[in-house]
Amino acid sequence: MRKHNFGAGPGVLPEEAIRKTQEALYDFNGIGMGAMEISHRSKEFAAVMDRTRSLTRELLKVPDTHEILLLQGGASGQFAMIPMNFLNGKAAYVEAGAWSVKAIKEAKTAGEVVVVASSADKNFNYQPKGYDIPADCDYLHITSNETIHGTQLKAWPDSPIPLVCDMSSDIFSRPVDTGAFDLIYAGAQKNLGPSGVTVVIIKKEFAQGIKKKLPKYFNYNTHIEGESLYNTPPTLPILVCMFTLEWLKGIGGVEAIEKINSEKASLFYGQVDANPFFTGTANKEDRSPMNAPFLLADPKRDAEFLQTARGKGIEGIKGHRSVGGFRASMYNALPVESVKALVTFMEEFSKVHA
Amino acid sequence: MRKHNFGAGPGVLPEEAIRKTQEALYDFNGIGMGAMEISHRSKEFAAVMDRTRSLTRELLKVPDTHEILLLQGGASGQFAMIPMNFLNGKAAYVEAGAWSVKAIKEAKTAGEVVVVASSADKNFNYQPKGYDIPADCDYLHITSNETIHGTQLKAWPDSPIPLVCDMSSDIFSRPVDTGAFDLIYAGAQKNLGPSGVTVVIIKKEFAQGIKKKLPKYFNYNTHIEGESLYNTPPTLPILVCMFTLEWLKGIGGVEAIEKINSEKASLFYGQVDANPFFTGTANKEDRSPMNAPFLLADPKRDAEFLQTARGKGIEGIKGHRSVGGFRASMYNALPVESVKALVTFMEEFSKVHA
Repeated sequence: MRKHNFGAGPGVLPEEAIRKTQEALYDFNGIGMGAMEISHRSKEFAAVMDRTRSLTRELLKVPDTHEILLLQGGASGQFAMIPMNFLNGKAAYVEAGAWSVKAIKEAKTAGEVVVVASSADKNFNYQPKGYDIPADCDYLHITSNETIHGTQLKAWPDSPIPLVCDMSSDIFSRPVDTGAFDLIYAGAQKNLGPSGVTVVIIKKEFAQGIKKKLPKYFNYNTHIEGESLYNTPPTLPILVCMFTLEWLKGIGGVEAIEKINSEKASLFYGQVDANPFFTGTANKEDRSPMNAPFLLADPKRDAEFLQTARGKGIEGIKGHRSVGGFRASMYNALPVESVKALVTFMEEFSKVHA
Repeated sequence: MRKHNFGAGPGVLPEEAIRKTQEALYDFNGIGMGAMEISHRSKEFAAVMDRTRSLTRELLKVPDTHEILLLQGGASGQFAMIPMNFLNGKAAYVEAGAWSVKAIKEAKTAGEVVVVASSADKNFNYQPKGYDIPADCDYLHITSNETIHGTQLKAWPDSPIPLVCDMSSDIFSRPVDTGAFDLIYAGAQKNLGPSGVTVVIIKKEFAQGIKKKLPKYFNYNTHIEGESLYNTPPTLPILVCMFTLEWLKGIGGVEAIEKINSEKASLFYGQVDANPFFTGTANKEDRSPMNAPFLLADPKRDAEFLQTARGKGIEGIKGHRSVGGFRASMYNALPVESVKALVTFMEEFSKVHA
């Protein structure tokens, strides 16, 4: 019996992708060797790389002006690589949550950072909007979804400078005008696959503008030229990503999953709004369908709530310490049934303790 | 039917580790969630990290003065990180093959490099010995096993400066006096697990001496302080490493595998030395038990040799283009039976075409 997995990541993956991975490990496609045991330059793995990239291109409608890279190091690696490559004078950052704060701190090791807007005044419970973007900065860095605080950007800023976006916790959850960005990056471990692979969608023109003397390995152009095979890529995590994207395509792509994610979010936030026993911590208009932090009206019930949930097979809902209470992460692969189970449990629990 | 997998890496893994990984993917340890789908901070994954590190410490007898890190980026990432962190004035490198050359090229982006010895004069078919090590360099970088050229260091240099070693292609294949090194690193995809995780064994004192202003993510101290959980580690590749190390411990550790590797090497090189149809390309005294490049006396038979081998279930023996001919990689998990199958085939083939 699989649990209802509301974990914030590494999170739930489609059962179809898990089953395909299991099969691939011992004897991949009938070649007599497992998927982990073949050269990254073999024709079998080349097909995995190609398909993972072409599915990414197709599902996110990535234009030909942009390259798709599959790198290592996660979003934290990108926090460092972006300023290393692109911060020449100063860079603009929006501070919308714990992950933005980390990105800013890392960028400051490379140069000057202008924080153009912040929601720190309200513990990041909203997404800053309507701020000015200085035209003399090298790029503007935003975070599309703040995993910890449960806010999501619903509209993209109209930026006069290159736009860089951390989409780690909502990539592939909704259609995105990828052509409007100069660099999108995401650790895989929410909607895409296991941890250990980082997708980077980069405008070639943006990369061509890199002027700094850099270690070869940390220069985006190295990986563009090497087609993400400059060195051995994380082959197994990439394979799982491919299976996950095949599943996503099979159910109708990002347009279809957006509707399913909306349905899950409506179910969950519907309960939170209708039931005085619960409060959502994020500003309503900025609520994320991916991560939903919430509090009990009576925090003395927290431990009991968590434990009773576990008894119902509901896992991963303990809130992050910086927000407290609970958090339901509802990534692409989380079934609607899991949200129904959570909502039913919430209703029952509130009735018993009203 | 599994093939005889002589691939140079990502290479063959123990069947036991593969089976355990398959089982862990859908429902890990009976927790109702798969091993890829749980938080890297969960108690279940914390146990995986702890066990992977403690098995590494136990099997390689890593002293308490050294920290064991599980990072991303492979050896190529380390080629960049090492000089970023430690090259203040100049660094000494031994150029013993294609991988050393890459390490040197990358170090030069960070500062001055002194190549203290090279075997480039003979297409790297031997390991340089008896060279002088300048005491005014920040560190000496060596490569314990050159995967492409098939040479292995049998003795370590007595270095007056910190000793840094790339052990990617022979770590865990033999006992090593780990305490004598300031930094050992290895991409996992030969003897340890799948690609996507890099083991770094670093002397704490060496890391404490880092003086440079660095991106936080690329500073070794960040990962020492964070116990390799500064950011989300590649959880699935680490789990496979743990299973591989459990297998290695089960068969008797590095002392036992060294004997098995010796047996495989004797079988293989015995054939090469006894049969005029074949020539080994590496200097005899420097031959690697891990990677054995060899040529046919009659290179016109190359294509037929490769194809006939395939018919016998022998895979991955095509040589690297820079050496030509063939290469048999015989990593820890390659069964003795596979080497016997190869040797038998070589003998048969030579008789038919003598």
